[in-house]
Amino acid sequence: VTDKSGNAKRGGRRAGNSGTREAVLATARRQFSRLGYDRTTMRGVAAEAGVDQKLVGYFFGSKHELFVAATTLPFDGPISVAAVLGGDAQERGERLARLIVGLLEDRDAGPSMVGLIRAAAAEQKAARMVREMLTEQIWGPAASALPVHNPQLAVNLIAMHLIGLVMARYVIGVEPLASLSEDQVVRLLAPMLLRHLTQLSEGGEVTSPFG
Amino acid sequence: VTDKSGNAKRGGRRAGNSGTREAVLATARRQFSRLGYDRTTMRGVAAEAGVDQKLVGYFFGSKHELFVAATTLPFDGPISVAAVLGGDAQERGERLARLIVGLLEDRDAGPSMVGLIRAAAAEQKAARMVREMLTEQIWGPAASALPVHNPQLAVNLIAMHLIGLVMARYVIGVEPLASLSEDQVVRLLAPMLLRHLTQLSEGGEVTSPFG
Repeated sequence: VTDKSGNAKRGGRRAGNSGTREAVLATARRQFSRLGYDRTTMRGVAAEAGVDQKLVGYFFGSKHELFVAATTLPFDGPISVAAVLGGDAQERGERLARLIVGLLEDRDAGPSMVGLIRAAAAEQKAARMVREMLTEQIWGPAASALPVHNPQLAVNLIAMHLIGLVMARYVIGVEPLASLSEDQVVRLLAPMLLRHLTQLSEGGEVTSPFG
Repeated sequence: VTDKSGNAKRGGRRAGNSGTREAVLATARRQFSRLGYDRTTMRGVAAEAGVDQKLVGYFFGSKHELFVAATTLPFDGPISVAAVLGGDAQERGERLARLIVGLLEDRDAGPSMVGLIRAAAAEQKAARMVREMLTEQIWGPAASALPVHNPQLAVNLIAMHLIGLVMARYVIGVEPLASLSEDQVVRLLAPMLLRHLTQLSEGGEVTSPFG
């Protein structure tokens, strides 16, 4: 995760100490969780943290970047990867679908995940931060554990499904997808994910062309 | 598409005439196309259109909303639907994949489509406008023509793949997906889309649970 706390040149202002930065992040986490992404502002975070709004801008640049920096993924990457890949290979798709949909429907984790993708969509710098965080914490561990021919690409395609689901169901709200139950979404998603999780699914179209 | 030109209450200002609104939209279209989404500003559009920046805000609310209002879909919905569904049913996936990837790689159409999804991600009002526009111009015609059991849901899932691809390949830039050739992406996408376009593909998991 990138931030500007090491850069004392911008505007000639000295960087605040890391205690201040951490206090701003903790306040941001609380506000994003309580108010949601749209209603949280740099000004409101600065006020509650008791610092100048310009200092928040100095540390984090924009609300999108502040959000990404404040987000802690609501699960442990390597443990989740092991749980999905363990057990019957043909049920990997359903296990991963349950994990993803369960997180998205969770009242704490869901808004974090949706906000992360909205922040990435809004701004190039936030997109880069999201990419780095996800690569380090999930995509990397998942790619090293996936028993398929082109695991990096398989992980990309799983991410593509997750991001598409978030945007279509939670952000844009297309119907009937937005109104389906958690269970119905799991049943829809499971066979789509399985093809990326199992080398032999459907003749391996996903991995064979570029192996 | 919703706008505020019919509402004379806000701030007590009279709505400008529709000629002014159209001139602002035409200027916005030029600037978004020339400068891209990030570098286009409400201020710059107002300056080139020769109107007060506040008037642009009054008509369109935000840059996201201005972008959606200025966007003309770079294809004809019903004609594209007919072209994808005509001919061999087993090649529908590939025809749709070629249509989608061709648009996204086009130097004019691509940035419009990516910008539309970024605008929807950034703001609820823009998301609603995108949903209305797409439902009217593509998803509606596609759902009436699709020979599957639950065509609305099938259209949702195709949209989910398209949006996921845009975000993963063009916005977040996950690798190796972001570096694949147009042809490689078509080959990846075709079998994923085919299952939503053909009732009998893969046992109909997509449509049967909620038919």
